[in-house]
Amino acid sequence: MQDIILASNQNKAKNFLHELEGKNPLFMCTMATTGTAKIPGISAAGQNPEITDYTPAADVELLLLGKCKSIQGVPVTPDGIPTPALATMSALNLANIPALPINAGLVIQPQVPFLELGAKPGKDIRTGKAVSNIDETFSRAKKAGEILSKTTDYIVIGESIPGGTTTALATLLAMGVDAKGKVSSSMPRNPHELRNKIAEEALKKSNIKFGDLKNEPMKAISNVGDPMMPVFAGLVIGATPRIPVLMAGGTQMTAIAAIVKTLEPKSTENVAIATTRWITEDKTSDIKAIVSQIGDIPIVAANLNFGNSRFSGLRAYETGIVKEGVGVGGASIAAILKSNGAINSEKLLAELEKNYAQIMNSKQ
Amino acid sequence: MQDIILASNQNKAKNFLHELEGKNPLFMCTMATTGTAKIPGISAAGQNPEITDYTPAADVELLLLGKCKSIQGVPVTPDGIPTPALATMSALNLANIPALPINAGLVIQPQVPFLELGAKPGKDIRTGKAVSNIDETFSRAKKAGEILSKTTDYIVIGESIPGGTTTALATLLAMGVDAKGKVSSSMPRNPHELRNKIAEEALKKSNIKFGDLKNEPMKAISNVGDPMMPVFAGLVIGATPRIPVLMAGGTQMTAIAAIVKTLEPKSTENVAIATTRWITEDKTSDIKAIVSQIGDIPIVAANLNFGNSRFSGLRAYETGIVKEGVGVGGASIAAILKSNGAINSEKLLAELEKNYAQIMNSKQ
Repeated sequence: MQDIILASNQNKAKNFLHELEGKNPLFMCTMATTGTAKIPGISAAGQNPEITDYTPAADVELLLLGKCKSIQGVPVTPDGIPTPALATMSALNLANIPALPINAGLVIQPQVPFLELGAKPGKDIRTGKAVSNIDETFSRAKKAGEILSKTTDYIVIGESIPGGTTTALATLLAMGVDAKGKVSSSMPRNPHELRNKIAEEALKKSNIKFGDLKNEPMKAISNVGDPMMPVFAGLVIGATPRIPVLMAGGTQMTAIAAIVKTLEPKSTENVAIATTRWITEDKTSDIKAIVSQIGDIPIVAANLNFGNSRFSGLRAYETGIVKEGVGVGGASIAAILKSNGAINSEKLLAELEKNYAQIMNSKQ
Repeated sequence: MQDIILASNQNKAKNFLHELEGKNPLFMCTMATTGTAKIPGISAAGQNPEITDYTPAADVELLLLGKCKSIQGVPVTPDGIPTPALATMSALNLANIPALPINAGLVIQPQVPFLELGAKPGKDIRTGKAVSNIDETFSRAKKAGEILSKTTDYIVIGESIPGGTTTALATLLAMGVDAKGKVSSSMPRNPHELRNKIAEEALKKSNIKFGDLKNEPMKAISNVGDPMMPVFAGLVIGATPRIPVLMAGGTQMTAIAAIVKTLEPKSTENVAIATTRWITEDKTSDIKAIVSQIGDIPIVAANLNFGNSRFSGLRAYETGIVKEGVGVGGASIAAILKSNGAINSEKLLAELEKNYAQIMNSKQ
């Protein structure tokens, strides 16, 4: 299909996508916060670290209402580049794909309908006590995945959790996946050094060495992960016995893949990681190298390119800022597949520009 | 279709049901509590008035898990007769229909996934300030109805709100619908006198006379209604432009019908009230007489009969206890329709008895 890049396991990826052509998906967006995002220099999902608590709520409000309620305007990076939720919203609207937000542990709850699973916000991983109540939220998420798998042809699950690649790094290391220098970043200059330092501090505080928790993903999450992880993994494990799941995100998805693979290996046979070209072509990270350590999971990428946009705030995406988030790659791929290719990258950008002009110019 | 009674508007009801045969529905259960249920003698949805706060949570836990988590055993009437959720669960399981609970204003939240809309528990209607935050929860519920209408062929919406027929009575009176002596009860002896007295007290406290709020349903709810109403009405109004909705319940559904009819008349063209034979044949209430004052809305009823059950706790349903709740009539009808009649009343009872034996005998 035009404008979907088969980034790895090309045959498997092709077959996987073929099954989804013309089908009706449900887009779900897991939302969570973690104290880890408050560390300066870690997250660009908000103008400053303190406001990252509001970013997930604002992102899903944008998806459902076309405007934010919890903040003025829309979430932006410290450089003023707008949230990828704008592009996710554009793709979902264009293809008429329903979106359902999931509270995976929030400080600020969105002012739109969302699925509640009892998840609590995550703590700074350097406490060694990052996530509480994991078994319960995992089991509720699994049940939710089961229920929703009866209502749709396939599920696309995205995430909005500032600081999520740092918690992913620490979790991957605890589980023995060599991800140092390989996770992606929402910043143009990938802060590997800072992130490695934080992940190492977190592991040390928990008395965990590389690979110690290879077979204990729940303990890894509890110590150095984030609350999105048990929810996302539960949704995948609940839904995959019946329908395929597109895990929509950047290198954070490799941590989910590692968790799912350990808890329920069969589930990984019915998933693909769906991301963007900005991730698969990123020179500062290496999603394929991480996934290859975990299993035979296809990676597909939306061939988005904002280089010719009339808006500098969108052209900036080509400089390596943002790259992924709010399932933008997966939502774009789902829109292309649902329309049997009638929607392509060009149409996605046109719709995004239309919405960008309308939303960024209105003073709310 | 065998075992579905066309209780009114027979031609319209028949056509409505015909559209749903063999289709895949989503069952939703609105859950709410109101201080009104704490008035002694008002609700049989719990062993005593205080425990009614736990009934909605326990009901949906039973639907999703096959057992309750928030209470020991299952909700029972003061006489020990078990919740209709047992029969709803049996119907949904038999027909493999997914169920999604909705928080429409709870004191106790269930330990299963549910949709959150920001609704707060209701107050005793005699305060004249029964429900807060109505516009916001209505608008979120409408959005949820829109979203979910894209994922399913039709929606069946039930309710678990102890005391709900009393708040329905007061709301109907405020809106000028003569429902005195016509609303149903979960008790064998319908406490019309007590309920009329409470409704009158509530109207008086709010300075409302019969029909004063004919065109102001939101004010009627705010003063003398319950928090389930704006959520239920919002779901109906959000979903009906795209798909049909079965409003599953007893005379409470007439209040929803009156609210929807006033807010969005067109929506009532795509709904039917789905209930049980125990309601449509009830000599102590008159659902048809209420609906005929509101509009041309078909009433259909599941021809459930537990008279030959081997369990006295189920035979008791034939004495007029319980009658409706947790959308049991609508869930049964949906099971019959989905299976094109392969599931009938006999099979529903057999499945219920199997679950009854298992759940009522296990000491949880």
